[in-house]
Amino acid sequence: MDNNLKNILFFLKEIDKMKSIFRQNILIDKTRQENDAEHSWHLAMFSIMLLDYIDYKVDLLKVLKMVLIHDLVEIYAGDTFCYDEELNKTKEIREKNAMDKIYSILSNKQGEEIKSLWLEFEEMKSYEALYANALDRFQPIFLNHNTNGHSWRLNNVNKINILKRVEPIKIGIPRLYNYILEIIDENIKLGNIIDC
Amino acid sequence: MDNNLKNILFFLKEIDKMKSIFRQNILIDKTRQENDAEHSWHLAMFSIMLLDYIDYKVDLLKVLKMVLIHDLVEIYAGDTFCYDEELNKTKEIREKNAMDKIYSILSNKQGEEIKSLWLEFEEMKSYEALYANALDRFQPIFLNHNTNGHSWRLNNVNKINILKRVEPIKIGIPRLYNYILEIIDENIKLGNIIDC
Repeated sequence: MDNNLKNILFFLKEIDKMKSIFRQNILIDKTRQENDAEHSWHLAMFSIMLLDYIDYKVDLLKVLKMVLIHDLVEIYAGDTFCYDEELNKTKEIREKNAMDKIYSILSNKQGEEIKSLWLEFEEMKSYEALYANALDRFQPIFLNHNTNGHSWRLNNVNKINILKRVEPIKIGIPRLYNYILEIIDENIKLGNIIDC
Repeated sequence: MDNNLKNILFFLKEIDKMKSIFRQNILIDKTRQENDAEHSWHLAMFSIMLLDYIDYKVDLLKVLKMVLIHDLVEIYAGDTFCYDEELNKTKEIREKNAMDKIYSILSNKQGEEIKSLWLEFEEMKSYEALYANALDRFQPIFLNHNTNGHSWRLNNVNKINILKRVEPIKIGIPRLYNYILEIIDENIKLGNIIDC
């Protein structure tokens, strides 16, 4: 077996850890928290299914690769809850170091592609990154909406924070934005989101 | 919101159930069984990473879509363990009915594409389906090998059954086949696979 294949197999073993990195959201059946591997798969399905609801062209293969790898950094940097101000101060550097570690496992063109896709996702400057980010903001809202606002209630999240968080949806998938506003209003009424 | 979008959102909610369909394999950290959503994500990563190890051309976007959706039928048909002879007798009809149900949620071109990709995967006649099937056989072997043969030991699996099961790897990714044989030999020595 060549060294490159050895590295790839080690990488495929290492990323199994994504299945044990838990997010704030719970599954729709409410049995437990969602993990990063499941989230990435679900997001890939969102990418495929909502493609007709954007008004710009994207390379779907690139989007899929992007959403499949966008959370790999959390293997080493952990999940940073989007509304946790303290943890978010160190997120960038922790995740940058984590990506360096992922790259070093492969040390090949594939490692470069993963790093470059992740950076593109983070910078949100291409259409693919815009679409991927919009979906990455929509999917947890969708899960929250279908689990009586579980992580919103747990973390006392308010409307202003959510509105800031959904900006990429407003720009990236404007046709979903009214639905997002409806979800927010409904969950304020249910006492799941604080109205301020 | 148009009806098509309503159907898509219902579909995206329904497929959350993939996160609670458990397979025979356990995670490499040995904490619990793997579920279908995680398996599909892991398989998508295998598809991306092992592309240079096949000697024929595939449309990677098609492969990714195929592996992401290939187990959706298990939402309604359940996971059928590959070495369970009794359950396998009814697998085809149960999964066909499940796919009809999935299609009926969408009743659009996307539903047709999912159904057609799933049939193509099952029939294993295209290069994409061959590669996807080879990976779908390799990933559980890889997990078993990294968890002291967990599901092999649990189900008293023997070498003949595994050799039959890995045929698509022999054809689809021949460059991995020697490694597969090494894994089998090593696990026979460890008492994880029965030598007959």
